[in-house]
Amino acid sequence: MHEFLPTHRELLSCRTILVSDTSMLAADLPSITTGLRGLAYWKIEVTGPNRDLHSGHFGGAVANPINILCDLMARMTDADGIITIPGFYEDVDPLSEEERRMLEEIPFDEERYKASIGVRALKGEKGYTTIERNSCRPSFDICGIWGGYTAEGAKTILPSKAYAKVSCRLVPHQRHERISQMFADYVTAIAPDSVQVKVTPMHGGEGYVCPLTLPAYRAAEIGFTKAFGRKPLAVRRGGSIPIVSDFEQVLGVETILMGFGLESDAIHSPNENFSLDMFRKGIRAVVEFHRHAED
Amino acid sequence: MHEFLPTHRELLSCRTILVSDTSMLAADLPSITTGLRGLAYWKIEVTGPNRDLHSGHFGGAVANPINILCDLMARMTDADGIITIPGFYEDVDPLSEEERRMLEEIPFDEERYKASIGVRALKGEKGYTTIERNSCRPSFDICGIWGGYTAEGAKTILPSKAYAKVSCRLVPHQRHERISQMFADYVTAIAPDSVQVKVTPMHGGEGYVCPLTLPAYRAAEIGFTKAFGRKPLAVRRGGSIPIVSDFEQVLGVETILMGFGLESDAIHSPNENFSLDMFRKGIRAVVEFHRHAED
Repeated sequence: MHEFLPTHRELLSCRTILVSDTSMLAADLPSITTGLRGLAYWKIEVTGPNRDLHSGHFGGAVANPINILCDLMARMTDADGIITIPGFYEDVDPLSEEERRMLEEIPFDEERYKASIGVRALKGEKGYTTIERNSCRPSFDICGIWGGYTAEGAKTILPSKAYAKVSCRLVPHQRHERISQMFADYVTAIAPDSVQVKVTPMHGGEGYVCPLTLPAYRAAEIGFTKAFGRKPLAVRRGGSIPIVSDFEQVLGVETILMGFGLESDAIHSPNENFSLDMFRKGIRAVVEFHRHAED
Repeated sequence: MHEFLPTHRELLSCRTILVSDTSMLAADLPSITTGLRGLAYWKIEVTGPNRDLHSGHFGGAVANPINILCDLMARMTDADGIITIPGFYEDVDPLSEEERRMLEEIPFDEERYKASIGVRALKGEKGYTTIERNSCRPSFDICGIWGGYTAEGAKTILPSKAYAKVSCRLVPHQRHERISQMFADYVTAIAPDSVQVKVTPMHGGEGYVCPLTLPAYRAAEIGFTKAFGRKPLAVRRGGSIPIVSDFEQVLGVETILMGFGLESDAIHSPNENFSLDMFRKGIRAVVEFHRHAED
């Protein structure tokens, strides 16, 4: 799509784009997503010795690529949850007092939030609330990691390889290609010469903020109100839909994000689901959107 | 075996035990292993949220168990390669000047060593040589690690679980059960309350040093000399054979370690092999050992 857009501007000519790939705050708390985070995603491969070694004969004298990978990953954030990649925050706008007040108005029950995901305590960047952290601030997550002996029992090896899949959520104005390069440069710079480290960018996209003054946004607001019986809140969320910023930058067209997911849908997780009730109300909201957007 | 020994002392009555599970310095450099490292081995399980979460919706606000696992593992050693578990070195005897001189006499070509395992640089505890590090000093190796999304492509999750299999090689006088508890206590103490950490001991054993004054050791020396045409060196090695310290402690019997492995055997690695030449010379050495041990 990224390559298709610039060469098909005529074909894609439109007033507004409707994307239904977001979620609401709760089934009884309709909301329209007005901001998305960007994304950068990498695969990291750390290579030590040319084969798995016996950890008794070599352990202590030869760098272990899993030990090194853990150390590199641990050094990407500090004790305050701040990302340590040099230059990472250069293009991050500080949250304005007004934005923070708006975010504070979103109903949020921290105890319920913790209970729903089964954790005793939350963790994130010092100085920010949970909603600020998961929607308006960047993040660093290791999505997957593997290496060495992972089957049953105890095998005593110093492995040859270790891998991780890693992503950062970005905020508007952080350019994913620039962040991607910064990360690769930093990992390479701090890696010891006892291993070889390869960083491969896998995916990326910019963040997005939808202007609330758009006539199409007003039409979406009416659609949600008719379907859910309550005026929707405008909220920035932490997910990423990279094509949306391409739509804006290449086609010059804004996107309305009318999505009907719920936290209980378990998205990107086993037993992902979508309720028929939200499906039917979502259809009604979109029908009403089209009716009013065409006015 | 650990439980079998104390109840079968009569059955197992003997003068000396011969174990053939060690290696020589090189095919043309016969050596007898006179010391082994001990071992402690654990599985670590870090649990965060009760399911994999969408890293966009939750990333930055919820502790990621892989990030936490990497951080915990990185904190087990410091920048000088010293293990940071409190109390870990309490029972470690410092290497005497005489021991260090003996170790220095072992022929060792660092460039050849690095080339044979395919690394540009070695890495280990500050202030010790490679041979000291891999035979007479303890080590900390992550043998395996896994968690989150490890298949093809980019899946953006904040996973529910992360796992590692971890081992320490120990030196004589370090008791593996004590070390095992110290490790579990330390990991639990430094883990944040945003995750649950479970440490399961999987395996362990004490180190061993064979007295060079034993008549059986002299017999082994004759066996090696006759088979390889050269008097063997006495060397402490980094591997572990936990039952050997049980033989000493429970049966009161010393063990002679007559092993014929080579570095090129790739032990604990794919394509593990053993040469027929070493097999035949090993048979001869053992026959000669029995002949002279019976004198």
